[in-house]
Amino acid sequence: MHKMKNGCSSQEEQLQVRRLQISDYNKGFIQLLQQLSVCDSVSDEEFNARFQELSSHGDDHVIAVIEDDQTGKIIATGSVFVEKKFLRNCGKVGHIEDVVVDSNARGMKLGQKIIGFLTDHARSAGCYKVILDCSVENKGFYEKCGFKRKEIQMVMYFN
Amino acid sequence: MHKMKNGCSSQEEQLQVRRLQISDYNKGFIQLLQQLSVCDSVSDEEFNARFQELSSHGDDHVIAVIEDDQTGKIIATGSVFVEKKFLRNCGKVGHIEDVVVDSNARGMKLGQKIIGFLTDHARSAGCYKVILDCSVENKGFYEKCGFKRKEIQMVMYFN
Repeated sequence: MHKMKNGCSSQEEQLQVRRLQISDYNKGFIQLLQQLSVCDSVSDEEFNARFQELSSHGDDHVIAVIEDDQTGKIIATGSVFVEKKFLRNCGKVGHIEDVVVDSNARGMKLGQKIIGFLTDHARSAGCYKVILDCSVENKGFYEKCGFKRKEIQMVMYFN
Repeated sequence: MHKMKNGCSSQEEQLQVRRLQISDYNKGFIQLLQQLSVCDSVSDEEFNARFQELSSHGDDHVIAVIEDDQTGKIIATGSVFVEKKFLRNCGKVGHIEDVVVDSNARGMKLGQKIIGFLTDHARSAGCYKVILDCSVENKGFYEKCGFKRKEIQMVMYFN
């Protein structure tokens, strides 16, 4: 505990990244996602069904979370899934999605911890690269995490 | 066959999109991908293994191809995989990847056919949107296909 000089440090050391657990439904995981995008209502049953569906992909689809030990709430999350290609000699690409840090927990580098966990996972899964889409205003954050700007994202909404 | 006035049309009518088959390895599928990116060598065994791996995802990972009936060669391809989220009330997102048309088969709207097939698939799989990354120079093509520019792509290479 050599970092105790700074008041925040002991707390930050406790804030470790782990994989999403089924019990995180009751720790505000969905409420955290609502800070990112539309996510009105996910029932316990819907959550469990989707959790099992994603779990069946094993290491090919990983959701990372940080739980605040003090409050028992999930305060940061992000996901990565591994796409298997024929390109690049049957290479693999990691896709990072749905990264969000609770608005009350900013400034503690939790976003960087989440991204580090996800990129480490993609690397160890054998991916040759990891990609993500972000707004122009978040570009600086991802550059600090070691990313570089590449292409542009196009979207078609169905509803 | 009311479109026979135009010399190209009868050929275009034959050029239908279908899913990748394991026999497409011998129809130049890998050589076509080489026009898009690095794809040095994929052996018959590697192709078969990856094909089976992707097939196990069923409708969640579809590779579309167009075969030239005259030459028996694959002249266009693109893929889409369905990501399952918690966001958007356990919504799904289609990710389009690896779209390429043979350089000798441009100008026949094969790219649009491929994109139409992939977006139709994503829609029918229940996705609320479909996304892709492209270079600025290909933006106009995707706009013609019904896409709009959204965010920016960031990348981290591991090698």
